[in-house]
Order: sequence, then C-alpha cells, then structure tokens
Amino acid sequence: MLSSTPRTTLGREKQRASTDRDDLYEVLDTGLVCHLGVVVNGHPMVVPTGYGRIGETLYLHGSTGATSLRTGDGGEVCVTVTHLDGIVLARSVFHHSVNYRSAVVYGRARLVTDPDERMEGLRALSEQLAPGQWDYVRRPSRKELAATAVLALSLEEASVKIRRGGPKDEEEDYDLPVWAGVLPLVTAWGEPEPDPMLPEGIGAPVHILHRE
Amino acid sequence: MLSSTPRTTLGREKQRASTDRDDLYEVLDTGLVCHLGVVVNGHPMVVPTGYGRIGETLYLHGSTGATSLRTGDGGEVCVTVTHLDGIVLARSVFHHSVNYRSAVVYGRARLVTDPDERMEGLRALSEQLAPGQWDYVRRPSRKELAATAVLALSLEEASVKIRRGGPKDEEEDYDLPVWAGVLPLVTAWGEPEPDPMLPEGIGAPVHILHRE
Repeated sequence: MLSSTPRTTLGREKQRASTDRDDLYEVLDTGLVCHLGVVVNGHPMVVPTGYGRIGETLYLHGSTGATSLRTGDGGEVCVTVTHLDGIVLARSVFHHSVNYRSAVVYGRARLVTDPDERMEGLRALSEQLAPGQWDYVRRPSRKELAATAVLALSLEEASVKIRRGGPKDEEEDYDLPVWAGVLPLVTAWGEPEPDPMLPEGIGAPVHILHRE
Repeated sequence: MLSSTPRTTLGREKQRASTDRDDLYEVLDTGLVCHLGVVVNGHPMVVPTGYGRIGETLYLHGSTGATSLRTGDGGEVCVTVTHLDGIVLARSVFHHSVNYRSAVVYGRARLVTDPDERMEGLRALSEQLAPGQWDYVRRPSRKELAATAVLALSLEEASVKIRRGGPKDEEEDYDLPVWAGVLPLVTAWGEPEPDPMLPEGIGAPVHILHRE
C-alpha cells in the first residue's frame, strides 16, 4: 500500500487515487522523463529530467554544477511522472477530462556518494531512457563520473492517480445529440535515424530497432 | 524576444535556449497538459493540469475547492510544458540525451474575476484540450461556472529550451563499432472510442475524427 501522509492523501477526486504499489511501479517504469519540482529562493521551479528506479529508490542526475538547482532550498523535491492516454470528450464542456496515469513522489533528495550506488543509479537512469545501451556503448569514464551528480529519492511518500474510461455526464445531457467518448493518444517509436557520422556497415541493434 | 531575468537566463547549456517568441507559442500551443509547480508549506508540489493561451496570458483552472493548491504559498507558480521528440543514442552513456521542446513560465497567478475574461479563459482551456468542442457541446452553466476557479499567468517571464538533432560524441568515440543516432518518439491520435451510452446514429464530428 502507498503511504498516506497529508500530502499524498488526495483531498479531491479520491476515486482516482490508487493505493496499489504495482500501479506506482508501472507508472514510473514506463515513463521517460519526470517533472522535478524544487523550491529556489522561495519560488517553485519545475524542470523535465530523466530518472531511474531501483526498488524503493528513484535516481536523478545532473551535472555537478547544477546540483543546487536540483535540490533547491533544503533538498525537498517533488517528482511527477505523467502519462496522457486520451482526451475524454463529454456532452458538456464542464465534464471534459483526460485519461491519464500519474505518480507523485515527495521527499528529500540525497546526494549519492558511494561509488557502487552511484554506478547502479546511473545504470538505472540509462536503462530507463535507453534500455540495452548500458551494455552496448562506452561506460562513463572517471572524468565523466566526477562531472555527474547522482541524487536518490525514497519512494516512501508517493501517490498514484489513474483515470480510465469514458465521460461521466449530467443525467439530462445524455439526451443531447452530441457525440461523446474518448480520443486515445498513442505514443510509439519511429524509425531509428542514423547519425550522419556513422561509418557504413553498422546497423542499429535489436534493442533499438525493436524497442517496446 | 523572451525576457531574461535571473530565473529564465539559463546558467547551463545556453545553446539550447531559444529567445524566439514564436518558439514559446509553438511549444505552448501544441501541448495538452502542463506541469504546474507551487510551494505548499514550504515544499514543492508538481501536478499535471490543463491550460490554454490567449496572447500573452496562460489560463489555468481548477475547482474552487482546490484553489489553494493551485496558487500555493503567495501565488508564485511555475508552469512547464514539455514535448519529448526522441531519444538521442550516443556512443557513450554520458552523451545520451533526449530531443525535446520545453517552455517554462514563472509568475504570480491571478484569480480571474471578470465574467467575460473567465469565459474566454475557459474557452481557451477547452479549445487547447479539445479543439472544436466549445461550439459543439453544452457550454458551462451558471452553477458549473461558480464551481470553477480560473487563474491567469502572464507570459512575461518565460523561457524555451529546444534540443534537436543527433548525438555529440567525444572525438575518440567516433571510431567505436557502435550504432548512434536518434530514436524518434511519435505521438498520434487513435480511433475515437464512442461512449457506450451514446444513442445510435450519432457519429463523431470531423473536428474529432480528423484532429491534427
């Protein structure tokens, strides 16, 4: 079960909150970027960035020069991952909605200093964005590692919201001569585009060609 | 030109910052949801939500009950819209990246009270999510309007970041026998799914069937 702190207990639309841990993992594991919120000089700042998960820990990274931005005032962060699945077209403007799955994680980001955990965190980040690449391309050099800050965030305080299905209209609106339903939003991988600098004879490997 | 305040002057990767106002509009106008960041009790909170634009103003909405969440401590918000266009596959883990377009808007959200501006803001929100629906479905009733808070955010302090193209690798890595390039991410509309409650004979209108 997900934790239920004041921040993650939804005040509104409770029926859309899921307390299934598997839903949380599914939403996180199928995402590509998160939106990271920090407080900088008392103001909110939201930036898109990559992430990876190992068990109950989310890993984020950045250049060492940008660490202050990433941890903000006091290290409190909010990480949100959203999948938009479709537009819910109702019989009235008011009941329009979206089908989506989103995860929100709150906590204090911890700067990872242990070399093994840093490497595992970077591998998780890399595999989230581009599965199979960690074992295929050149691994980080010592210099590259030194330039990279790895942050860890516990999934202890997390919530998931999911909306599926068609519109819920007002009783009297069902008689309107108006089409209603869902317009699905579909995301897919296109054809790999080779780097012009690539020598002849190097084809894209299966993990790129047939990425799910 | 976009404003250049300390918050929107990027400290890092300046080559990815665009100062073209048209880029800002393009990124905002082609998005479906934004990630809204607020500060609540000193902590960052990031929620996905709809939005719409009219000229130099972004409109957000929420139930009147959730207004405090949306404006947070002091009304300062950060709105971020991100389009993910592809995964940049480099010859080393370190140079992996993503192609994306993102807009970040900072400012103090203003609660809209003028009835005409409220209606125009709601229309912009509705048309952003579901173009053509405002003139097709039932408009908001007085009761529904009373339950909806409309917020306005000036685009005065905004920045855009765009990354396009292939990987930039280390000089010595170009000799590696490794495929490199871009795996594009493609988003498209699926087939409209009719609400099971729909009476026979009502087909989806053109603005839904042929949405761009």
